Amino acid sequence: MIKRLTIIGVGLIGGSLARALRVAGACEEIVGWGRSPEPLQRALELGVIDRAESDIAAAVKGADVVLIGVPVGAMEAVLQQLKPHLEPQAVVTDVGSTKGSVVAAARKVFGILPPRFIPGHPIAGTEKSGAEASFAELFRNRRVILTPDEESDPDALALVRQLWQQAGAEVIEMSVEHHDEVLAATSHLPHMLAFTLVDTLARLEDHDDIFRFAAGGFRDFTRIASSDPQMWHDICLNNRDALLQMLRRFTDELNILAGAIEAGDGEALLETFERAKAARDDYCEKSC
Amino acid sequence: MIKRLTIIGVGLIGGSLARALRVAGACEEIVGWGRSPEPLQRALELGVIDRAESDIAAAVKGADVVLIGVPVGAMEAVLQQLKPHLEPQAVVTDVGSTKGSVVAAARKVFGILPPRFIPGHPIAGTEKSGAEASFAELFRNRRVILTPDEESDPDALALVRQLWQQAGAEVIEMSVEHHDEVLAATSHLPHMLAFTLVDTLARLEDHDDIFRFAAGGFRDFTRIASSDPQMWHDICLNNRDALLQMLRRFTDELNILAGAIEAGDGEALLETFERAKAARDDYCEKSC
Repeated sequence: MIKRLTIIGVGLIGGSLARALRVAGACEEIVGWGRSPEPLQRALELGVIDRAESDIAAAVKGADVVLIGVPVGAMEAVLQQLKPHLEPQAVVTDVGSTKGSVVAAARKVFGILPPRFIPGHPIAGTEKSGAEASFAELFRNRRVILTPDEESDPDALALVRQLWQQAGAEVIEMSVEHHDEVLAATSHLPHMLAFTLVDTLARLEDHDDIFRFAAGGFRDFTRIASSDPQMWHDICLNNRDALLQMLRRFTDELNILAGAIEAGDGEALLETFERAKAARDDYCEKSC
Repeated sequence: MIKRLTIIGVGLIGGSLARALRVAGACEEIVGWGRSPEPLQRALELGVIDRAESDIAAAVKGADVVLIGVPVGAMEAVLQQLKPHLEPQAVVTDVGSTKGSVVAAARKVFGILPPRFIPGHPIAGTEKSGAEASFAELFRNRRVILTPDEESDPDALALVRQLWQQAGAEVIEMSVEHHDEVLAATSHLPHMLAFTLVDTLARLEDHDDIFRFAAGGFRDFTRIASSDPQMWHDICLNNRDALLQMLRRFTDELNILAGAIEAGDGEALLETFERAKAARDDYCEKSC
């Protein structure tokens, strides 16, 4: 049982974990800290947290576990603020979408990745933001990636594992580099495509008519373009190399496809679509 | 009341219209024709059609209305086969995803777009194919675009309008060119992006791991990559110019975005994502 869990940034992810751990009876007290008073107050009113603290020192005082749920661009500043106030035995973890940048921020602030700081990333979310959008079931049957290193404290790692398992998730460990590559492919690239598609269409002259005739496929395809702009700004700047590499691969493939359309090369088109359909059907059979 | 409706190609769209018109009590008899005997037999067993005909002359004999539901690449050959057997007063319509190519095929076969041939396209579908996937509610509250021209027979147009309205759809008229541009933007381009994304990822070395860590956003984003390859092959070849133009616009925007990521231009990224989110939220408020 965790006596005090402090959540730094009570948004969709932090809020949903708080709700899940409450349902599981895993914490005695959940304290929330946030940069702006209104959303924090709202999280308190919704019963997501037990106590709201606007002072970060007061928030982490006596906390066994500190979960950082801020956008990755704010990570370094938050760690800097936390550093003097963390309890010596406190276990720290985060939910940032990019792990290389979080480890770099920790190294910059602490000199090393502290053994009791276990970087993490739940592969779950919706296009909505904020504690209002949080729900206890968000992580059920979803995967959480942890990226500890050789110096990581086994007890701290076990505790963070257990935390996510209590929220219903499957916990997997991988290297920071592999995480950032995998996420660039499966999450960051698709978001770039969805944002760019919607923006391209919105800039067309007859954009009202265009959107009017969009069907269900378009609605699903573009759902992720409703995601939080600040969060995605941070992700782009914090997983730049892996994302740019995936963007280049995608653009190369798209250019080849456009070339086949231009040349009327039906065989190449059919091959591409069949290969993609087979891969997508196979993925869906395993994971949908 | 239509006495005899003949559906040429009883797939998802033709089959769903047959089911909807049956529920509405709009037809006395629904006859189906298909190139392959098994799927046609299956449509008969499922009660989608009343009678299966493998001979196209027998299928259209006595039909008041002929609905063509074959992929657009098969349109010209099907019209050629139909031509000698159509009743003089028969109303013909189609559900092809590209309209310029359908009108061109009609002109090639008949010399003109026959006044009683009303080209149409329901903006509805799923990633599934075949009469097995058909359901009567597919067109409810969806839009159907008709692209008649100045020579079109008003009675034929009124009949096709009524047909779709009886299936629960809203009917809209527009020019062939505008249809093909709008659909290139809202449907054909997104399908190219989904097919290309899945294919790009499937070609990565660690593709099993990649797909394993894909989350819900990826599942929704790639759903349309499970669509019928042959149908999309046909669409690409039959709406080539409008699709290539949209692909170029998209690629230009994606290159600008990649440039902003590479340059670390956070302001440009934030602006793009905010504009896209606003457009997508606005679209969703009106149509989701």
